[in-house]
Amino acid sequence: MGDNVIILAGGQGKRMKTDKPKVLCEVLGIPMLRWVINSCEDAGLENLCIVKGFGAEILDEYLGGKYETVMQHERLGTGHAVMQAVDFLKKNEDSHTLILCGDAPFIDDYTIKEALELHKSEGNAVTVVTTQLSNPAGYGRIIRSENGISGIVEQKDATPEQLMICEINSGCYWFETKALLGVLSKLTPNNAQGEYYLTDCISLLIDEGRRAGAYLSDNPIIALGANDRRGLLKLNELARISVIDGHLDNGVEFTCLDGVIISPEVEIEGGATILPGVILRGKTKIAKGCVIGPNCIIEDTVVGENSVLNNVQAYEAEVEKNVKIGPFVQLRPNSKVLEGAKIGDFVEIKNSVIGKGTAVSHLTYIGDSDVGANVNFGCGVATANYDGENKFRTVVEDHAFIGCNTNLVAPVKIGKSAYTAAGSTITGDVPDGALAIERGKTSIKDNYATKKLKKRIEKFEKK
Amino acid sequence: MGDNVIILAGGQGKRMKTDKPKVLCEVLGIPMLRWVINSCEDAGLENLCIVKGFGAEILDEYLGGKYETVMQHERLGTGHAVMQAVDFLKKNEDSHTLILCGDAPFIDDYTIKEALELHKSEGNAVTVVTTQLSNPAGYGRIIRSENGISGIVEQKDATPEQLMICEINSGCYWFETKALLGVLSKLTPNNAQGEYYLTDCISLLIDEGRRAGAYLSDNPIIALGANDRRGLLKLNELARISVIDGHLDNGVEFTCLDGVIISPEVEIEGGATILPGVILRGKTKIAKGCVIGPNCIIEDTVVGENSVLNNVQAYEAEVEKNVKIGPFVQLRPNSKVLEGAKIGDFVEIKNSVIGKGTAVSHLTYIGDSDVGANVNFGCGVATANYDGENKFRTVVEDHAFIGCNTNLVAPVKIGKSAYTAAGSTITGDVPDGALAIERGKTSIKDNYATKKLKKRIEKFEKK
Amino acid sequence: MGDNVIILAGGQGKRMKTDKPKVLCEVLGIPMLRWVINSCEDAGLENLCIVKGFGAEILDEYLGGKYETVMQHERLGTGHAVMQAVDFLKKNEDSHTLILCGDAPFIDDYTIKEALELHKSEGNAVTVVTTQLSNPAGYGRIIRSENGISGIVEQKDATPEQLMICEINSGCYWFETKALLGVLSKLTPNNAQGEYYLTDCISLLIDEGRRAGAYLSDNPIIALGANDRRGLLKLNELARISVIDGHLDNGVEFTCLDGVIISPEVEIEGGATILPGVILRGKTKIAKGCVIGPNCIIEDTVVGENSVLNNVQAYEAEVEKNVKIGPFVQLRPNSKVLEGAKIGDFVEIKNSVIGKGTAVSHLTYIGDSDVGANVNFGCGVATANYDGENKFRTVVEDHAFIGCNTNLVAPVKIGKSAYTAAGSTITGDVPDGALAIERGKTSIKDNYATKKLKKRIEKFEKK
Repeated sequence: MGDNVIILAGGQGKRMKTDKPKVLCEVLGIPMLRWVINSCEDAGLENLCIVKGFGAEILDEYLGGKYETVMQHERLGTGHAVMQAVDFLKKNEDSHTLILCGDAPFIDDYTIKEALELHKSEGNAVTVVTTQLSNPAGYGRIIRSENGISGIVEQKDATPEQLMICEINSGCYWFETKALLGVLSKLTPNNAQGEYYLTDCISLLIDEGRRAGAYLSDNPIIALGANDRRGLLKLNELARISVIDGHLDNGVEFTCLDGVIISPEVEIEGGATILPGVILRGKTKIAKGCVIGPNCIIEDTVVGENSVLNNVQAYEAEVEKNVKIGPFVQLRPNSKVLEGAKIGDFVEIKNSVIGKGTAVSHLTYIGDSDVGANVNFGCGVATANYDGENKFRTVVEDHAFIGCNTNLVAPVKIGKSAYTAAGSTITGDVPDGALAIERGKTSIKDNYATKKLKKRIEKFEKK
Repeated sequence: MGDNVIILAGGQGKRMKTDKPKVLCEVLGIPMLRWVINSCEDAGLENLCIVKGFGAEILDEYLGGKYETVMQHERLGTGHAVMQAVDFLKKNEDSHTLILCGDAPFIDDYTIKEALELHKSEGNAVTVVTTQLSNPAGYGRIIRSENGISGIVEQKDATPEQLMICEINSGCYWFETKALLGVLSKLTPNNAQGEYYLTDCISLLIDEGRRAGAYLSDNPIIALGANDRRGLLKLNELARISVIDGHLDNGVEFTCLDGVIISPEVEIEGGATILPGVILRGKTKIAKGCVIGPNCIIEDTVVGENSVLNNVQAYEAEVEKNVKIGPFVQLRPNSKVLEGAKIGDFVEIKNSVIGKGTAVSHLTYIGDSDVGANVNFGCGVATANYDGENKFRTVVEDHAFIGCNTNLVAPVKIGKSAYTAAGSTITGDVPDGALAIERGKTSIKDNYATKKLKKRIEKFEKK
Repeated sequence: MGDNVIILAGGQGKRMKTDKPKVLCEVLGIPMLRWVINSCEDAGLENLCIVKGFGAEILDEYLGGKYETVMQHERLGTGHAVMQAVDFLKKNEDSHTLILCGDAPFIDDYTIKEALELHKSEGNAVTVVTTQLSNPAGYGRIIRSENGISGIVEQKDATPEQLMICEINSGCYWFETKALLGVLSKLTPNNAQGEYYLTDCISLLIDEGRRAGAYLSDNPIIALGANDRRGLLKLNELARISVIDGHLDNGVEFTCLDGVIISPEVEIEGGATILPGVILRGKTKIAKGCVIGPNCIIEDTVVGENSVLNNVQAYEAEVEKNVKIGPFVQLRPNSKVLEGAKIGDFVEIKNSVIGKGTAVSHLTYIGDSDVGANVNFGCGVATANYDGENKFRTVVEDHAFIGCNTNLVAPVKIGKSAYTAAGSTITGDVPDGALAIERGKTSIKDNYATKKLKKRIEKFEKK
């Protein structure tokens, strides 16, 4: 079953001015809690329990039932938070338990694993993960003893000598699970705040003759959290530069970092170029030779080699190699642009395939369509894929030529090598190689729409 | 009538390379003079006189007759500038007079008010507003005496000892009006520059046995001005970060500050998110839960709760709550987008109301229109609101469905729940619930336009 | 014939992760090699020989046959590189020869010329161009002697005393050509790397009793190069700020420098304003009074006085004075927008002239067109300039009024003051002053397109 993880996620973060629990505040677009969960999972830990409190419903919704949670109804300290997870711990007593703050996003899997190694090899009842800060003000100081550590002294309780100590408590601990359970019940709120402190477990364990140790991480940012928007901005800036640094190491070209925000999961091959104002999110992959930017949002999208995206927003899309897109283009979910296609300015693609070498040059909307290879779209083409009730697909076969301001009223199929004349509204299939010039005469059909609209109105009135 | 204010605004700012008077150079998009006027008005001072000189007509045009001005025909020093305002002062002698530099934008209302308090309580004839700089080089140093101050020593006249003084003259003064009038006429240009120095008034008053004092402000930027574009950029950067800092304190979320420029008047509720490249100007208000950016210009626009604006430019518009707009949208003046509406890509709205829950998804222009609730616009819809002479309004009633590439030729009304077929040009009203498919036959009408065009041509030839 | 220049350009730059030779990595969008060539040409040197190696074909393609090149088949050191150019040198022996690194882009023409002056006046066989760095670590140190310099000591060979020397070798040298030829053949690879070092020439010349000197430049960046993407980013940042500094000196207004990238050749008049996110490239010229940005790319484009470009991309275009363009506009090559024209949102102009005072307000594509003065384009107009085979021109004469969603099917001419009705597809010329309402009836013409498509399919299948 592996070891346990308890993540403390009950805090409100009042100064964040948000209705969400603080752990859902985002760094590079990813909730802080997710950073912590990811590091645990990267370290091979999957038996997680999240202690929720403020905004528990929002947290539950975010977690989507994927992780065990327990509720901390009152905010009575870190020890109290862990107490809520006693049943969780008892299910898997013969183990170790990692305790983490859900709002300290930069804990890393290497530190987690190495700290556990030390914890086990030293036979510790508890191992505190620590780091050294040149300015430790505000953090609990680690008091090293001959045999591990003798305790953690908070800033306000520290002697002048102790204040000089630069090794600080990151708020992350490995406990032997049984030892933790043994002392949890002995915690008391006998302090000014009336809270149960998790750090009191350390002295209780030492009193029992157990060993407390410390794992000193050389990653100084593991303890960083944020209490307000200024602090959160600092975490973002740290993470932003750190992620970009990794890409620089891999040979990604950046001319100017202004406005460049890359989420940690994004993959970019060396030899790609990222211009200013580019936001890359989610499971995006950029291949070598690409030039992305300026001013793009690329989210959960794969871009093939040597493609150029200038002022493009792409969401859950796929772009093959040697494609040129932009400026001013949106690719909405489930769009696939095949090799060598060219998407020009003021074009939206949605839930469609654009075939090899096809050109969609300007002012066009292609939705719910399957477009073949070497098709040419004139300016102002619209796929009328929605009749107010349902969405239908449009098929445009290879080598077709769609005239300017053509309407393709789905369901409709434009055959291979077929032409449509400028300004045509095409409502029926066009045979291969044919030219379609379809324009109607004027008429008013009274009451035609009344029935069709019923559903839309019902839907609207339910909102 | 209150106290008097004289703002010195005659300078040219040659190195700014502009035809405008220097005081109209902008910090965060607001002329420096406006910053100064605003601080005076915030301090409750409304009896202003602005001394103009270089580019006086441009200044007059900017001020729009709202403030009294006097002309300084020659540039003969700060004392000479104030002399031009003698008639202004004589109209209200039983008062105090604040003298300010129009190109030192960061004087604040608190400092102005507190300095007046001190000025009165000490019974001073003149009170210099001062501040302390770690690097005072270039500024006039304040010589404190047992009884107030004994004078101001300019950099070039200062002894080595005096150069060590860090308290400097901000260029802002409170005078007892009568005392000022008394010594103004005694100023002489007996100096190397041949100029009348306002600071000479201080020694003249002391010689008369009057008291000169100093109000030390703890705001070190009140004396800052700019003589060139580099200096102006520094003022902008200072102001930019200072304004953002205020919003961070209020709980506004920023992920990355690159390209974020927020004018001082803008209001943002805590819990709103501002992405990179966002420029907020004028009387803009952003409610909580909004996500603005990246790359927006929002000017004199109110945005309701939880609305999302991505790559939007909005000018004098109103956006209600839960609206989603973008990417690549322009809202021009007098546009109002009601609750829950969705404006997609490549859409321009101008002088129109977009009703609740209505969708304008792509490549559409809606001008001079009143659009009801739950209307669906297909792609490529144009409101033809201009016939070359006049603009007319378009009305689209609730639940209407406008097909792709429809032209709505105003004045025209699309009735409740009515449909228009894709590619139709609608020139007459469509009854409720009807479907309109309106297409004409080909014809050439010779000379039709000749008369209509007359006015436009006349108008053009007058340009 | 003038003096010779040899530019070493054979390196790979493995850590750049690119298939290109390292000298083609770009600073501000310009290959490093081009920076070096430009400085040589600015210094009046035109007899250039470029030593190529890695990626020679790519280099040849970039140079386009404009410069003499020699191939270094093996990478055996800087001396070996110069040896490849012996034939080049022998063609012009009675001269001096400048040797430069193609990947140190910041050498300047002033330094080149002044170093040659010193070189000649001192009668040196070789003159090393040097500079002083506060942190010289990694660079070769200059050992000054009573009579010029006695040599260059590499970091790894330097004594502690020599490591304190801050004058370093920039990698740029002037040689007397005959003297260089004399010692080149004596170079040996007797060192740990087995390479021929160009710097060994210096001691060989001194051994022959010749004088070696050093020209100390006060430009500390001349020696800077980049071995990886991080280094290249630093060069970009240095160059970016340096170029902007020059424009600030000239009175150009910047509110915020974020995302502003200006290539060195760009000219901007004082009094122009550049907003954030503006990229100016190539032979672009911006006149005074212009406001450019935010978020523009302006490349090889001339913009006249007082024009405003907001969110515009322009390539090889020309914009006259008092023009307003944007937001969200693309001007493609060979577009010319005349005085006082107004181009609104979502407009593409390509290979066209837009006449004086003409308005193209929204959602319009004008390609291959000659548009007169005071024309008004409604929304959604498309010039259908391409029939799948050829491109044709559209002519729109003065004062014409083009209705919304009109298609102008080229070749076509809209006469002076003519009108087209909204939704019309215009395939024939419209006489002056006429109104054209041209709409067809529905028909399907089988097999019409088959012949026409042949060429396109052939073309496609050749790709």
